[in-house]
Amino acid sequence: MSADQMKLGAFLMAGGHHIAAWRHPDAHANAGADISHFIQLAQMAERAKFDMVFIEDAAAIRERNPEIASQAARSTSFEPLSLLAALAVNTSHIGLVATASTTYNEPYGLARTFAALDQLSGGRAGWNLVTSASDLEAENFVSSGLRPHGQRYERAEEFAQAATTVWDSVDEGAYVLDAEQGVYADPAKLHPVDHRGTHFTVTGVLDSQRSPQGRPLMVQAGASDVGKDLAARTADVVFSAAQTMGEAQAFYADVKARLAKFGRQADDLKIMPGVSPIVGETESEARAKYDALQELIPDQVGVALLASYLSLKDLSNHPLDGPLPDMPQTDGIQSRQQLIIDLGRRENLSIRQLARHFAGARGHWQLIGTPVQIADALEERFRGKAADGFNVMPPLFPSGLDDFARFVVPELQRRGLFRQEYEGRTLRENLGVRTPARSS
Amino acid sequence: MSADQMKLGAFLMAGGHHIAAWRHPDAHANAGADISHFIQLAQMAERAKFDMVFIEDAAAIRERNPEIASQAARSTSFEPLSLLAALAVNTSHIGLVATASTTYNEPYGLARTFAALDQLSGGRAGWNLVTSASDLEAENFVSSGLRPHGQRYERAEEFAQAATTVWDSVDEGAYVLDAEQGVYADPAKLHPVDHRGTHFTVTGVLDSQRSPQGRPLMVQAGASDVGKDLAARTADVVFSAAQTMGEAQAFYADVKARLAKFGRQADDLKIMPGVSPIVGETESEARAKYDALQELIPDQVGVALLASYLSLKDLSNHPLDGPLPDMPQTDGIQSRQQLIIDLGRRENLSIRQLARHFAGARGHWQLIGTPVQIADALEERFRGKAADGFNVMPPLFPSGLDDFARFVVPELQRRGLFRQEYEGRTLRENLGVRTPARSS
Repeated sequence: MSADQMKLGAFLMAGGHHIAAWRHPDAHANAGADISHFIQLAQMAERAKFDMVFIEDAAAIRERNPEIASQAARSTSFEPLSLLAALAVNTSHIGLVATASTTYNEPYGLARTFAALDQLSGGRAGWNLVTSASDLEAENFVSSGLRPHGQRYERAEEFAQAATTVWDSVDEGAYVLDAEQGVYADPAKLHPVDHRGTHFTVTGVLDSQRSPQGRPLMVQAGASDVGKDLAARTADVVFSAAQTMGEAQAFYADVKARLAKFGRQADDLKIMPGVSPIVGETESEARAKYDALQELIPDQVGVALLASYLSLKDLSNHPLDGPLPDMPQTDGIQSRQQLIIDLGRRENLSIRQLARHFAGARGHWQLIGTPVQIADALEERFRGKAADGFNVMPPLFPSGLDDFARFVVPELQRRGLFRQEYEGRTLRENLGVRTPARSS
Repeated sequence: MSADQMKLGAFLMAGGHHIAAWRHPDAHANAGADISHFIQLAQMAERAKFDMVFIEDAAAIRERNPEIASQAARSTSFEPLSLLAALAVNTSHIGLVATASTTYNEPYGLARTFAALDQLSGGRAGWNLVTSASDLEAENFVSSGLRPHGQRYERAEEFAQAATTVWDSVDEGAYVLDAEQGVYADPAKLHPVDHRGTHFTVTGVLDSQRSPQGRPLMVQAGASDVGKDLAARTADVVFSAAQTMGEAQAFYADVKARLAKFGRQADDLKIMPGVSPIVGETESEARAKYDALQELIPDQVGVALLASYLSLKDLSNHPLDGPLPDMPQTDGIQSRQQLIIDLGRRENLSIRQLARHFAGARGHWQLIGTPVQIADALEERFRGKAADGFNVMPPLFPSGLDDFARFVVPELQRRGLFRQEYEGRTLRENLGVRTPARSS
């Protein structure tokens, strides 16, 4: 059914992915405090048969500098697991993926929350596993600051292992519910966890029925070597960032090749790069939409955003029209840092140009054009083994998602590249990824 | 408006509060995995103008013994914060209170989740703060087992302090949202937390707008000396358990008297004991309803439940028709343990009798009678300064809640003891409890 069809996610974000979206006349400036707005977006994506909505997270405000914070809508939204539950009971088929940290949670607590989200959505929950690279986040939780990249991933690996064991502690049909005979549960179908690791001890049983998907979908975005290995071992979907066809193909081949060493098939993991589409009836209309957004960015906001993507405290002491300075590797998100450095070198971009570029698409692939042009570009990457699908990041909500749903999705459907109807009821069924077998 | 009216909570629980509820022909045996059932109950309580629904929690299954677990519906429900979010978007006026642990969470993470729940419910969220007394829970999180009572409360106090500071880190109106001028936030209205305590370090700002209630409602149920002090310092509502009028009056006077030393008024905190009502058109019809439920309890399930309430591993080696053995104080819920011991001595009850008694009402005050009889009893305690309201714990859902809503609530309204319409939109407005001033 779907091996020759692409998968689509709708990456929701208050305002839009463009840093100045909130200032646009079509934006809902107060989106981050209005649940009905998010419900509207999820239902819009569901009508267009998107596989899932995707919600990012960091348990912190995103901007330390008060002057920047005063100009940029980067600080307020809903805690994503609460948001997911609210969306679950207002949708029926679309998958619901939210981000949660292995650094600031415990496996039993997070596993039971995702089990609950899977239960209350009827099998549509997914967990985007992150290790939390922001020092602003670290300051809300620990006194010792941001932990090094390697340490975070070591903990993440043990976390994922413990969480999946919790999900697998209850078999399907463990709760018999025979009122007449007084048989509530079949103890033979409950398998107490016996996880005694470096970071966590878990020795209980999941406190709910087995979730409809068995295991909620696992999503990851890490692009470091250790991140790609973790994904190849535990993820069902990888959300990635790639500017060029070559980068995307290389990443795709790399991650797929890692699956075999963990006993997995190429189809067991879907790779879905981000794409920021700006759709117009004509190319010049699309370009005008883009320019209207770009004009709303104050330079200092763009530069501060770029600095935070590079895990730098500040870039404002460097000439705006000069190149990026040399910089050491950080403990932040190494893949995003490298992507920015590469783009700056490849296209010889100044700090100001890079800042404006990233303010629009947050480091992701940007497409500005007609529905046919955008479908062409997506089809090329899909057929070129650069992507199994895409995580769509509209610069502006709701209009950017509405444009994609109304104009690009039908074009993809016309080409047979995207579904007309949902294939199943669970997220795994629609994505075509199996529930991994219980580890014995 | 409401000083002479009682407050009512509906304590929801899969199946019902009676241990054998799931076996009753009117029960929804699969309630713990059916979100529509919980939505139906919350909407039923809202139609009856209840102040709030209340959801308990322990991050663990509740029964270690597989034989008991196979007969008792004590193991499965929704993680309560996800459940709360799902209820929030399906109701409009009723308060939504969920339990969360200070032992197995971190203050920033929990504070932002309750801020989100308050935001997405339009100011109707409440947090029932617990320190988690179950060793089954401890085994899901830590290798060192259940922490001693005093240590848990010391952490809880610091946790509550840090969480309220997080809520207060954002003033009302901090997010200006002036798109034209490009002014998103007013940094003068953001107050970074500077909490560096024994257990937690938090130095950030809440990542959302100030929540509609300023601070979500704080609920507590601790009845130890240190628990009552924590409540007097930080709680807006105390959920308590009392069998007799005398016990209830003594508890009420004790907690209210503690408020002054924390600079608070008697009205700043509402005391709402639990009550388990079984309503019939006649007293004998009510009694028959009770008996039908009691007949569904296997003795060993009742005795195991009693043992767990006493924080004992086992009681089955004592004669069923003899008295409770002497027992040492435990690190579990000391107040519940004492209540059981007192009741056993006062009424000279055997283990079997105590077991059957607690299997029905979980240690709470039980009322079996006509709507007039039940209203009489509630009125007596309300007027007798034993309660500001009640947390209603129907033995069986949905019928037990429906009975109370259809027959007892109108009787209370007829007497002027309960509202006809919600007074406000937020939980605090309806309960008549102020948002505490920001500590400087």
